[in-house]
Amino acid sequence: MSATRDAALAARAAALALAASSGADRDAALLRIADALAARAYDLAESNAEDLARAAVERLPDPVVKRLRFDADKVRAAADGVRAIAALPDPLGRTQLSTELDEGLDLYRVTCPLGVVGVVFESRPDALVQIACLCLKSGNAALLKGGAEALSTNRATAAAIAEAARGPGVPDGWMGLLETREDVAELLGMDDLVDLLVPRGSNAFVRHVMDHTRIPVLGHADGICHVYADRATDVGMAVPLMVDAKTQYVSVCNAAETFLVHADAAPALLPPLLDALRAKGVAVVGCPRTVAATGCAPASEEDWRTEYLDYKVSIRIVDSLDEAIDHVNRYGSKHTDAIVTEDREAAARFLALVDSGNVFWNASTRFSDGFRYGFGAEVGVSTSKIHARGPVGLEGLVTCKYKLLGHGQTVAEYASGARRFTHRGLGRDCPL
Amino acid sequence: MSATRDAALAARAAALALAASSGADRDAALLRIADALAARAYDLAESNAEDLARAAVERLPDPVVKRLRFDADKVRAAADGVRAIAALPDPLGRTQLSTELDEGLDLYRVTCPLGVVGVVFESRPDALVQIACLCLKSGNAALLKGGAEALSTNRATAAAIAEAARGPGVPDGWMGLLETREDVAELLGMDDLVDLLVPRGSNAFVRHVMDHTRIPVLGHADGICHVYADRATDVGMAVPLMVDAKTQYVSVCNAAETFLVHADAAPALLPPLLDALRAKGVAVVGCPRTVAATGCAPASEEDWRTEYLDYKVSIRIVDSLDEAIDHVNRYGSKHTDAIVTEDREAAARFLALVDSGNVFWNASTRFSDGFRYGFGAEVGVSTSKIHARGPVGLEGLVTCKYKLLGHGQTVAEYASGARRFTHRGLGRDCPL
Repeated sequence: MSATRDAALAARAAALALAASSGADRDAALLRIADALAARAYDLAESNAEDLARAAVERLPDPVVKRLRFDADKVRAAADGVRAIAALPDPLGRTQLSTELDEGLDLYRVTCPLGVVGVVFESRPDALVQIACLCLKSGNAALLKGGAEALSTNRATAAAIAEAARGPGVPDGWMGLLETREDVAELLGMDDLVDLLVPRGSNAFVRHVMDHTRIPVLGHADGICHVYADRATDVGMAVPLMVDAKTQYVSVCNAAETFLVHADAAPALLPPLLDALRAKGVAVVGCPRTVAATGCAPASEEDWRTEYLDYKVSIRIVDSLDEAIDHVNRYGSKHTDAIVTEDREAAARFLALVDSGNVFWNASTRFSDGFRYGFGAEVGVSTSKIHARGPVGLEGLVTCKYKLLGHGQTVAEYASGARRFTHRGLGRDCPL
Repeated sequence: MSATRDAALAARAAALALAASSGADRDAALLRIADALAARAYDLAESNAEDLARAAVERLPDPVVKRLRFDADKVRAAADGVRAIAALPDPLGRTQLSTELDEGLDLYRVTCPLGVVGVVFESRPDALVQIACLCLKSGNAALLKGGAEALSTNRATAAAIAEAARGPGVPDGWMGLLETREDVAELLGMDDLVDLLVPRGSNAFVRHVMDHTRIPVLGHADGICHVYADRATDVGMAVPLMVDAKTQYVSVCNAAETFLVHADAAPALLPPLLDALRAKGVAVVGCPRTVAATGCAPASEEDWRTEYLDYKVSIRIVDSLDEAIDHVNRYGSKHTDAIVTEDREAAARFLALVDSGNVFWNASTRFSDGFRYGFGAEVGVSTSKIHARGPVGLEGLVTCKYKLLGHGQTVAEYASGARRFTHRGLGRDCPL
């Protein structure tokens, strides 16, 4: 029996106990965690300094080092984040449906935890804090694997969290820390013990996870997002919106990678759009018509399938709304796609037919984010249509069960016709 | 390009058009289908007679022949079932969430179809009618594979449905009929085109599907359901309830396979329970203590993991509620498990800690069924915690998308602090 499997078995056992915990117990544990993190901010920063020193020796790239840094201010900010999670409403025990099947036979559908959630994230140590606390809030046990470069930080942080969490309703073993690549490989194979995987990291990494496990995965690999400027586009609205979608933060999944422009809108739109993009340092490639109109470099077939995550955009001129929709459904990643138009019917058709989790009318693709959506906490952005779609808050970490409360009823009475179902809505919460 | 892939590509294209159809168009098509089936009842029964004749030549087992029969009365009953589906509320376009992110920037989460649903079912021809119509109702394209023994019936029925469905909002190609095992193997591999698989049939078949596809699967393989008679059991309630759970219909997934009995309740409960079971012809195997108390045959370790689907039950005496819960979570299939007790606290603990989709207090496991739950239509019973759990109605065939309606807002305005989010609940339906 490996240590990883031991951790998973402990998590499984802990998950059952967590399922019976009260929201008050879980919130109290979260507040203890927040206090402990704040109180130990300097200790944790010291552990982090070990990782930073090793990163310097190993000459890790600057962006990695920047993400790795977990100084006392960042620890205290993470503690504030934990307090915010504690303040969110309890996602468990919510009655989603209540039906009287017959007098004295009441059916309720109630939210409950998934069980054991496996999370694999890259170098940011605050991700460990956030995801462990989201799991605790939602009554799930967590198996966490952080980046190897943050090993000392993660160990110290996980130990602080585990110690502080200990208390009424919170069993030991609810959080397990995995440390090696071999642990991750083993995690992916534990579909008998793990209910959901949340991979955070590079596209390649997320795809690797999706391709190597039978456990359901919450997340997304690619973010190939489009902005389509329709025939009836207000150029004054479209240009800043498209520039925002492309450049406000280029290395994120909801940044636009391709602009589609209706041929009738192109003459008025392309010159100011290209000027604005060039002013921001954005390289432009385009379809033959865009090349002819603007003198930009030609796009290859591969460009339409590429998530640049950089100051680069591909532009294609289309002859109709439906051609734009077809392009998005063919080349997109079902993440976030926007139409800019003054034509309400065109917007309705685009929103109905584009097969993406987030479809926007006259708004930048950059808005698709759990915090901007007002969810308070974000588990991830899902491009799956199953379980959870789009930015996912705590509800992505819960499932439901049907509770039927009776007085000894048997199906035979109903099959024989001696009794009949009433199927009356109760409109009340499950009493237990 | 194979015919199966052609059918899937056609279904994919049709799914996009169906996503834009109105509920009225889809219901009108369902009513045309119902009329056509009723009008062609004798023609379809004639096609079915061909299958029945072949079944006689091939000496198929009686239960298969019984399921295969699709006489005019059964066709008309299926037509009535289609009318019932048409009468259900439209599962699409329902606003699940509405939030003002800022003035003039409104977010809605709205239900929409999954896309293409693949359904593989065994010999009952009415399953084809039901599942095709559930897909149409929910705006999904359907790829259907019925049993080979029902080939003539399925061809005639599918042709009648396709022809009748044709009309406003319903594109050709929304329903594809697959006919061979090779088609199914190909279907399981089409995770680029198929959004959900619904396998209906034997446990072995469902498990085969789950093990050989990356497409999400809605359904269940095993149904190892338990009834636990707690210490505070009313024997007069427990005996008929347990007999119902075991014998009301033995070959179905929600029939009980194991009874757990608290040691304190055993002396009063076991004698009348065994008498009642023997009167129904139920064979009993038990743990050593049950054997000692009742003289029944001993159960093997394998018995606790066995779905008998027959007049046979295993009985185990436990010393505590938690031992019962552990047994259910260890050996059960997360389908349906019941506690019989007069102790409300014990019931609450059982319902919270048993990790199954359906957890019952003082009611027979046989109640876990979409029709008994009042869902009107049942897609299947899911033992997954992801997407849909328990008996699944039309909502198992839909997903959702976020629609954001703006006036040209950019994220830069909010990142800079020039504007702030309001995150105010709107409490209204999405206007488009």
